[in-house]
Amino acid sequence: MGSSIPAFYQKDRRGRLDALRAAAGLDDEDIATLESAGGITFGEADAMIENAVGTFSSPLGIATNFVVNGSDVLVPMVIEESSVVAAASKGAKAARAAGGFVAEAGAPHVIGQIQVVGAVAGDAESRVAAGTQRILDAANAKSRTLAAMGRGARSVSCRRITADDGEQLVVELVVDSGEAMGANITNSMCEAAAPIVEELTGGRVLLRILSNYSEQRTVRVTATFRGNDASTVDDMLLAYQLAKHDTYRAVTHNKGIMNGIVAVASAMGQDVRAIEAAAHAYASRGGSYSSLTAWSKNADGNLAGSLEVPLGVGTVGGISKIHPTVRVCAKIMHATSASGLACIIGSAGLAQNYAAMHALVTTGIQAGHMRLHAKNLAIAAGATLGQASDIAEQMIRESDISEARARQILGS
Amino acid sequence: MGSSIPAFYQKDRRGRLDALRAAAGLDDEDIATLESAGGITFGEADAMIENAVGTFSSPLGIATNFVVNGSDVLVPMVIEESSVVAAASKGAKAARAAGGFVAEAGAPHVIGQIQVVGAVAGDAESRVAAGTQRILDAANAKSRTLAAMGRGARSVSCRRITADDGEQLVVELVVDSGEAMGANITNSMCEAAAPIVEELTGGRVLLRILSNYSEQRTVRVTATFRGNDASTVDDMLLAYQLAKHDTYRAVTHNKGIMNGIVAVASAMGQDVRAIEAAAHAYASRGGSYSSLTAWSKNADGNLAGSLEVPLGVGTVGGISKIHPTVRVCAKIMHATSASGLACIIGSAGLAQNYAAMHALVTTGIQAGHMRLHAKNLAIAAGATLGQASDIAEQMIRESDISEARARQILGS
Repeated sequence: MGSSIPAFYQKDRRGRLDALRAAAGLDDEDIATLESAGGITFGEADAMIENAVGTFSSPLGIATNFVVNGSDVLVPMVIEESSVVAAASKGAKAARAAGGFVAEAGAPHVIGQIQVVGAVAGDAESRVAAGTQRILDAANAKSRTLAAMGRGARSVSCRRITADDGEQLVVELVVDSGEAMGANITNSMCEAAAPIVEELTGGRVLLRILSNYSEQRTVRVTATFRGNDASTVDDMLLAYQLAKHDTYRAVTHNKGIMNGIVAVASAMGQDVRAIEAAAHAYASRGGSYSSLTAWSKNADGNLAGSLEVPLGVGTVGGISKIHPTVRVCAKIMHATSASGLACIIGSAGLAQNYAAMHALVTTGIQAGHMRLHAKNLAIAAGATLGQASDIAEQMIRESDISEARARQILGS
Repeated sequence: MGSSIPAFYQKDRRGRLDALRAAAGLDDEDIATLESAGGITFGEADAMIENAVGTFSSPLGIATNFVVNGSDVLVPMVIEESSVVAAASKGAKAARAAGGFVAEAGAPHVIGQIQVVGAVAGDAESRVAAGTQRILDAANAKSRTLAAMGRGARSVSCRRITADDGEQLVVELVVDSGEAMGANITNSMCEAAAPIVEELTGGRVLLRILSNYSEQRTVRVTATFRGNDASTVDDMLLAYQLAKHDTYRAVTHNKGIMNGIVAVASAMGQDVRAIEAAAHAYASRGGSYSSLTAWSKNADGNLAGSLEVPLGVGTVGGISKIHPTVRVCAKIMHATSASGLACIIGSAGLAQNYAAMHALVTTGIQAGHMRLHAKNLAIAAGATLGQASDIAEQMIRESDISEARARQILGS
């Protein structure tokens, strides 16, 4: 499968779907799912959440040019913001020339927290250590599936927390969740282990829940980006320096990275709030909020970028098998393992960061944004899709891009 | 309009839509939009992003019981995760008894950053101060709309950043973006001001872009939650203490808050990556990542909660007028101002946090999650929507909730 499809963005929907069918090996049913409005029926939505009244669609686009760990991959993205899919494709193209993205995902270790309050024994830690096997057995009884795969709860540890009104004990499970994100099974395991923890510690168990701060479950992505002259490379390094040293810049720098990560994760039905929380907390682990990526110049004068971010994702569980479009997106990406998926998602984040910094130090961010933004304003002003492009072009020529101007042009 | 609709969750889709029509004053066209699959056509999606091949739907539900600043409000939420809409409704109900949520949104001030590198004059700060009016004029020339409303670029300041290889200057604009989120206009203003900044500082301008770290644009929400016995109140305070003092817990605590915030923001077509980035960076502003909410017991023994979080949202611009479902969601919420919208979104975050902590210290998080999770597993195993509920009930009775078990029941 090749991910570099000539002029994909210029094709109409039929042309894009045909190219996707050929490149990703989709069948008629997959194409029909992509052509359906939104992928899920109301009934499916109603089974997913409470008080459902309808469904809400976002655009689904395909980022091209990605090579991840030596394999070409087309990357589905669900996002409402213009420029993100184009930026990812552009970043992937610049990385492709030097072999693409090299990514490695950590083991799928989920942390489960069991909070113990009240009269905790002074030697609770050693008692818990001695009772480790009982705790693990109780936890692992909750999932025959994981146990059968040699996965499941792996270890138990203790930490004391100094709270405003005294000390609390946290007993933490580490769970190998296999190909799942692992939230449900980790929660169930914490609940199952709680009575034993109470018995061992003498305290009372309160919270029993996973932590989404999966800092043992990071993905690390590196790539070299070719095709820039020396001054662009140096300027991008100066831009990176600001993100490294200034929180105000770092927030938007990382937001751009998350544009890539979240768009792919959304297409795969992942819990994007969990991914966001872990990523941004990780960005602050040094004591001040900073860049999730690092950039340098290699011996050849090319830009070398790296991204390290916690990424708890799964290819089973959640809505991954319920949402028809997620199933097709998984097929497009050949995402059969959680670690493989994490590598693609991380690569999209690094590609996005490259493209954003490149645009910022060359033409400025608005040149790319404005064409689509102008089109959106024209539609908001009442233009048809057919009229919108012409009105957008005129507003760009006039340097007056506003809904008010779009309305004037429409009325004239 | 009343937001407390008896047994809303038990109604079928028609019953929910009828109740919504009556309570929120929707017309036939609004209802038709909610009944349509996803709200946007492919053509609209294609105008929003690049390389579009389709649309991707998420469920849209309605949280009930909210009172925000004295007014009843029904709150649309777009989210794929079970329990979130129910939790928000439950939290809002507990707050309703004591008058609901009191919320205040800060002024819509967006920070724009102009990075200056190279040979910056030693007295650049005073030169920029002297040139403030020229900078503001250049910036404000970019938006006749904002200027006409008495909004626009307001102030200019300077900061020096110590980077790895020397000092950089950042000139910051503060832009009053009115009812808009303000990203596009702030970016345009920074680009317009850049030549003047170069002239004044003697340096070279590189980045010209907003910061999403909108810490001057927070929403503050407080509420009192009734109906809990003394031990539940004390347990929730112990649960909060862990989130306050432990990063691992704080990440998931805040993730739950963002479940509420992001679900409402998504229904309103907001840039949720920007909201996530600002919120989590704000959670780390004290030097270690901590809870975005604070909880205490008031004189009556009831729980008092507060949330303070940056929230850059808008009711004009972005996709707010392009996505038909966003238009209807705005109508449902009577969200005509950005500050009013921020107050509702913040209230959803605090309601969510209450409900999550309440569930965690009483029945545990899994009791609520498991029913819907079990239903999803049954569907993933091949059950029809009609079969799924029965299979879910059986798995819960058996305490064996897995796709494998669902498949066995289906086959038997």
